[in-house]
Amino acid sequence: MKSLRQDALDIFNAAIQSVLPEAAVRSALGKWLEGNDSGLKNGKLVVIALGKAAWRMASASHEIIGQYITDGLVVTKDNHSQGPIPSFEIMEAGHPVPDQRSVAAGERAMELVKNLTEKDQVIMLISGGGSALFEKPMEGVTLDEIMLITRQLIQRGASIDEINTIRKRLSAVKGGKFAQLCQSAKMFSIVLSDVLGDRLDVIASGPGVPDRSTTAEAREIAKTYELDLSEMAEKALELEATKNMMEHDILIAGNVSLLCCRAAEEASKRGYTPLILTTTLDCEAREAGKMLAAMARDVQNPRGKEYSMAPPYAVIFGGETIVHVTGKGKGGRNQELALSAAFGIDGLENVVILSAGSDGTDGPTDAAGGLVDGQSLERMREQGILPKKSLHDNDAYHALRGSGDLVMTGPTGTNVNDLMMVLCR
Amino acid sequence: MKSLRQDALDIFNAAIQSVLPEAAVRSALGKWLEGNDSGLKNGKLVVIALGKAAWRMASASHEIIGQYITDGLVVTKDNHSQGPIPSFEIMEAGHPVPDQRSVAAGERAMELVKNLTEKDQVIMLISGGGSALFEKPMEGVTLDEIMLITRQLIQRGASIDEINTIRKRLSAVKGGKFAQLCQSAKMFSIVLSDVLGDRLDVIASGPGVPDRSTTAEAREIAKTYELDLSEMAEKALELEATKNMMEHDILIAGNVSLLCCRAAEEASKRGYTPLILTTTLDCEAREAGKMLAAMARDVQNPRGKEYSMAPPYAVIFGGETIVHVTGKGKGGRNQELALSAAFGIDGLENVVILSAGSDGTDGPTDAAGGLVDGQSLERMREQGILPKKSLHDNDAYHALRGSGDLVMTGPTGTNVNDLMMVLCR
Repeated sequence: MKSLRQDALDIFNAAIQSVLPEAAVRSALGKWLEGNDSGLKNGKLVVIALGKAAWRMASASHEIIGQYITDGLVVTKDNHSQGPIPSFEIMEAGHPVPDQRSVAAGERAMELVKNLTEKDQVIMLISGGGSALFEKPMEGVTLDEIMLITRQLIQRGASIDEINTIRKRLSAVKGGKFAQLCQSAKMFSIVLSDVLGDRLDVIASGPGVPDRSTTAEAREIAKTYELDLSEMAEKALELEATKNMMEHDILIAGNVSLLCCRAAEEASKRGYTPLILTTTLDCEAREAGKMLAAMARDVQNPRGKEYSMAPPYAVIFGGETIVHVTGKGKGGRNQELALSAAFGIDGLENVVILSAGSDGTDGPTDAAGGLVDGQSLERMREQGILPKKSLHDNDAYHALRGSGDLVMTGPTGTNVNDLMMVLCR
Repeated sequence: MKSLRQDALDIFNAAIQSVLPEAAVRSALGKWLEGNDSGLKNGKLVVIALGKAAWRMASASHEIIGQYITDGLVVTKDNHSQGPIPSFEIMEAGHPVPDQRSVAAGERAMELVKNLTEKDQVIMLISGGGSALFEKPMEGVTLDEIMLITRQLIQRGASIDEINTIRKRLSAVKGGKFAQLCQSAKMFSIVLSDVLGDRLDVIASGPGVPDRSTTAEAREIAKTYELDLSEMAEKALELEATKNMMEHDILIAGNVSLLCCRAAEEASKRGYTPLILTTTLDCEAREAGKMLAAMARDVQNPRGKEYSMAPPYAVIFGGETIVHVTGKGKGGRNQELALSAAFGIDGLENVVILSAGSDGTDGPTDAAGGLVDGQSLERMREQGILPKKSLHDNDAYHALRGSGDLVMTGPTGTNVNDLMMVLCR
């Protein structure tokens, strides 16, 4: 059991390495340089990094193409900058609700690309959170209104997709509009995706990508959440989204698929047969836990062995589950999934289930997630913990801490959703 | 798409054939006869069939070993008998709450095995529902009290495991006690299992199987559901369960694993790579639907192909999901799973998701379940149906009927839980 647990942790940690901002930028710029190094000295090279991982992506780009960068801009969340980077201005802005600093960042970026020509290059380094951090309201709409609408949508339970569909239409830089401002300059985007399915127009509200949403969708969202809109905003929602624009190169350099792939490779190296079942898992955390446990249990089923996974195996899932919090405990989606799974594998030997977030901070806790085995519940009970009550109270953190089943990595500086795994031998 | 849908239905129907009561009894008795045909003429052969499939199991046994049967008894649910069977008495009794007829059936069975010797044979044919149909309260406990407790447990949300743990302790025939009454006669049980994981002491409350539950568990259940117990009943819960008894041959001749295996074989024949992921799926139906859809979506994921299922494939699940009904619509767990899955595969080509019950009657409906594809939601909307509202109202039946996505088999006469499948090419 001990080595099975260690293997699970090692596989998770190896997978994380592949999706760190530095790894993503290095591999993407390496590929890009092969096709572009000749032309780099002729014009300007503007690098704009946007999102929670912006500082680290910018810093990595400086290491590789620092000598070519004429203007750099980092726009990131408060406390996400780690100091100056040569040729880069560093700005911090509001998140998850945009603020005046977000507009200042949007305006600064617009200035940097204002007079570019076809000799020039723009490189966008995009990570999650960029949507709020980078803003410029379209003419006639105020930042106050965008802030109000964002708050209303968040409070009324709108999805991030829905929020961005509205915000793109009220913005002069989202939904491909920023790319249009760069005019004839070449553009290359390196993306660290925090959106399941990698819809490019959704990640950071797609400053360089045509908006795929429709006027009808925007109207439906406004109705569903009973948004209080000004006349100008209402008009903005009715405008056809930017669809015709120059194609440009976009590379998803890090996402949950890569996280899963790297986990599969590492599992394979250690002798487990890997299988990635999905990279877009989006159901309730505790139900996902039950399902993973149900798969793990079947190792012992004597019938149908020829059609089932043969141990040792690693069944891998990527995605982001959800929790409907009803209790007052402490936890996160990954910890809740792991605690729920512990019930379904109670007493089993030779199987562990891991669920952990690539950002290293699951919910409002200092843990990345949980790693449970067939003795987890017993260890909890030995500590005087009632596991059923913990699950009921959404208190997975304390239950898993009691059984020694928290996965602790510290903040990783990246966010490409979560990894879940059934490891069995 | 059409042939993909047809393949899914054909695979389900082929799988059902393998778990019909007749198929189960024929294959089991065939094996048993090989070892026992010599001794059959010397003593009595008592066949007791118990459960919802009892009539059909008894009828099949009559076809094969009719000439040896000295006494036969069928105990089944109202309207589940299809006429006389030579050498068999046929009794109908109460379900899911036992009644006076259940006790009459228990007493009749006790009479039939009263004076057996080691020359004699008892064959038990056991299917789901047997627990309520076959009863004899232990001394000092009344049927009225058993009925009251059963009703309380059902109303207060106890699981079937919990209900049976209590009922076994109040009974003179459950939890292995009936087998003890057969004394030195040889006993052979053929089981059609409706219990996930096939715990033999749970199926029909295990009349021939030692009770694995403990006094502590029984006490906890009584407390949890605040049972109002007589002094005698309270004493009965404290008695150690029957653990030491003669071993006898038990064959699980039909269960959800067999259902899944047969589906896998049939899928393989049709060119799909089969994979059985679990046979004990027990989570929320709509969350399971999301998860199956998430797996189906990943067919289009370009990354990690070498570690993922390669189409054409059939990913197969067995189990029994649950629905927490909050709406007033019509449906069942399989229909709800299918409707939920339809959202997750909306617009996709080349993938269908099936969920259907082996009994052919999903919830209080005339459908076995649902079969959805990437155009299901569109077909619903064309009929004026709002699929999100249907799901919210637990009204999957009408939504799936509108899109032509109901799976209709009629009652199959068996019950070995449900089959779920992602079929992709």
